[in-house]
Amino acid sequence: MSGREFFATRTVAEALAGFRPARRTAVERVPLAQALHRVPAAEVPAPAPLPGFARSTVDGFALRAADTYGASEGLPSYLDLAGAVRMGRAPEVTVPPGGCVAIPTGAVLPEGSDAVVMVEYTAETMPGTIEVTRPVAPGAGIVRADEDVAAGAALVPGGRPLRAPDLGLLAAAGVTEVAVHARPRVVIVSTGDEVVPPGTVELGSGQVRDATAPALAGLVTDAGGAPVLAGIVSDDPGALAAVLREAVAGADLLVVSAGSSVGTRDETAGAVAELGEIWCHGLALRPGKPTLLADLGGVPLIGLPGNPLSALVVFRVVGVPLVWRLAGCPAPPPEPSTRARLSRDLASAAGRLDVVQVRVRDGVAEPVFGPSALLSVLTRADGYVVVPEPATGLDAGAEVDVTLYR
Amino acid sequence: MSGREFFATRTVAEALAGFRPARRTAVERVPLAQALHRVPAAEVPAPAPLPGFARSTVDGFALRAADTYGASEGLPSYLDLAGAVRMGRAPEVTVPPGGCVAIPTGAVLPEGSDAVVMVEYTAETMPGTIEVTRPVAPGAGIVRADEDVAAGAALVPGGRPLRAPDLGLLAAAGVTEVAVHARPRVVIVSTGDEVVPPGTVELGSGQVRDATAPALAGLVTDAGGAPVLAGIVSDDPGALAAVLREAVAGADLLVVSAGSSVGTRDETAGAVAELGEIWCHGLALRPGKPTLLADLGGVPLIGLPGNPLSALVVFRVVGVPLVWRLAGCPAPPPEPSTRARLSRDLASAAGRLDVVQVRVRDGVAEPVFGPSALLSVLTRADGYVVVPEPATGLDAGAEVDVTLYR
Repeated sequence: MSGREFFATRTVAEALAGFRPARRTAVERVPLAQALHRVPAAEVPAPAPLPGFARSTVDGFALRAADTYGASEGLPSYLDLAGAVRMGRAPEVTVPPGGCVAIPTGAVLPEGSDAVVMVEYTAETMPGTIEVTRPVAPGAGIVRADEDVAAGAALVPGGRPLRAPDLGLLAAAGVTEVAVHARPRVVIVSTGDEVVPPGTVELGSGQVRDATAPALAGLVTDAGGAPVLAGIVSDDPGALAAVLREAVAGADLLVVSAGSSVGTRDETAGAVAELGEIWCHGLALRPGKPTLLADLGGVPLIGLPGNPLSALVVFRVVGVPLVWRLAGCPAPPPEPSTRARLSRDLASAAGRLDVVQVRVRDGVAEPVFGPSALLSVLTRADGYVVVPEPATGLDAGAEVDVTLYR
Repeated sequence: MSGREFFATRTVAEALAGFRPARRTAVERVPLAQALHRVPAAEVPAPAPLPGFARSTVDGFALRAADTYGASEGLPSYLDLAGAVRMGRAPEVTVPPGGCVAIPTGAVLPEGSDAVVMVEYTAETMPGTIEVTRPVAPGAGIVRADEDVAAGAALVPGGRPLRAPDLGLLAAAGVTEVAVHARPRVVIVSTGDEVVPPGTVELGSGQVRDATAPALAGLVTDAGGAPVLAGIVSDDPGALAAVLREAVAGADLLVVSAGSSVGTRDETAGAVAELGEIWCHGLALRPGKPTLLADLGGVPLIGLPGNPLSALVVFRVVGVPLVWRLAGCPAPPPEPSTRARLSRDLASAAGRLDVVQVRVRDGVAEPVFGPSALLSVLTRADGYVVVPEPATGLDAGAEVDVTLYR
């Protein structure tokens, strides 16, 4: 692979803005009970207005607002009780001028009425006569038939993952299936002569179990994708190219969890260059510089650094937004975060994005340092702080945003 | 139900501190691929040290650090190249005094060496002789055999939901199954004569589809629980008591999505009082006052307000921490949040917690108002602002934490 010198290092900002495949997953219909956090392919319009009928929002009496004008504790309005509305039933009675109808919260507003007075401001002083001690305005104590959603208006927007309350509104409208983008299939290929499956009980000398692929699978799942572990390929460009050529057919995104030596990295680039176009080789990111971004005939590929910590940082920063994008969501949903003060100076280089793992205690973010060969750096951290590309560092005591792991 | 007046209204702080059932779900073993966000029942110790062997963290040459002392560009150390270590193999060569062995990142440190010098600071000027232009300290360029995790030390703690990197560290240690708390079974009972299943195509007059149960199921899923929709019960205390009596056997948490009229609320309390102990009836929470908390022989029960918006606010504030607790996680994981300035004054009452839905644009939080009968108030919001219990309100322009929906 002689092309290594031809591929530019890019900044993370360039990668996020420029490495944006047009590919989107197919649209499928899923039942509401499986639609949480799935991305609707398009706005879902309301087939009919909601709630569908003018509805009382209080327990009280439906009446004509004009009949209460001027009412007070000292000089109540007296209205004839003409009947009652029952929950879930059509009203069997109308409200005549000077009259009222008992109504529970949520019931249908009877004809003739334009407001509901709360029971707290009434008294039945004589059987059949309701005393109202406060004036109510037309529309008080009710919601209009289309006040929640008008017919044809959006119940939920397209392109934004569905949240719990969205499921409620869809259910209210009788929408029991939603057209959503399929979960992006993220095929993860592990490489490395030293790497063996996690299930290996006895390790040979120099062998390590594949830690990166299961962790990546977790990040993919969190991003709404479907991880596919394609197994471990030895450090052989021919073998890797063969696996990638086969995997690309069933993938929306290919991830190569690379061996960590210089030789291995070159081999990955060589195999990838055979199958597609390398978009960048090297990211201005620490940790995570030896990252490869490529396009394999419309399927994006991320070649990750060999160290598990670096690999997971790169996938969080560059991979997660890609997975969401492939599912039709232009930007990932917000992550947990908190504000904290840095316990010490953090050095960086202008033009490079630094991702620093931190523990947070009592509002103080304490960096967790260690070689990026150590996965425990990541599991001991509560989250991370980003030193932005233009900055040359952050000072101790600076207030920073910590993205928290959940 | 005559007991209504006996039950105190509690603050949310009191409920969170005091309504803490001792119940925990059973422990089950799940494969790593299904363990994301599950809660380990106990700390998982490392069966052996990780990475398990002293390992190079750079591409370079293993050597005795002492042989490089004083080395510089002008006066390099010259070392005899004694061979090479291959990835994933036991070294077949040891490092003699004055010698070195080529080693890739991640390979086993050969005997006799105590450091690795990066290839960047070396040159093979003559075949078989490596020139080293920088001194290295003992331990440089390597990780110790137990530097990631020592044998017996915790790979992951108990009681904290597993994150993606945790899965990686467990895999590295050969742990392919984890003992976690079972997902709490949250049985959701809907009530109300007007409520019909979401699949109902044609609504009768005054009928509404059950919106709250599907939305609650989403919140339960997000909290790591297993929602069970127990269907819709009519407004009849006997019927509700019968359903609850049967449901309690298979539930870790019971949720009654109540009808919204005063009569219905009393009926719920009546049915619950027959089966267990009411802990509080009324929360100092807006929206969400008509909330019932009870203990049914060790199974907690939440009776929610009838309005979907209020019900979902209450479940987020009081229910979600309970679901996590039942699974052995003492506090829910962090939620997405952002800082924003309030666009307008928010009035509250001292001693009451107010949850105000907001949209966030350009750092400004704009309240979304509307009757709590409207679910669209919630679907139009990006998140919510809390007016804390001691405060009587928040001023326009105040900087607030917005909990964001994801």
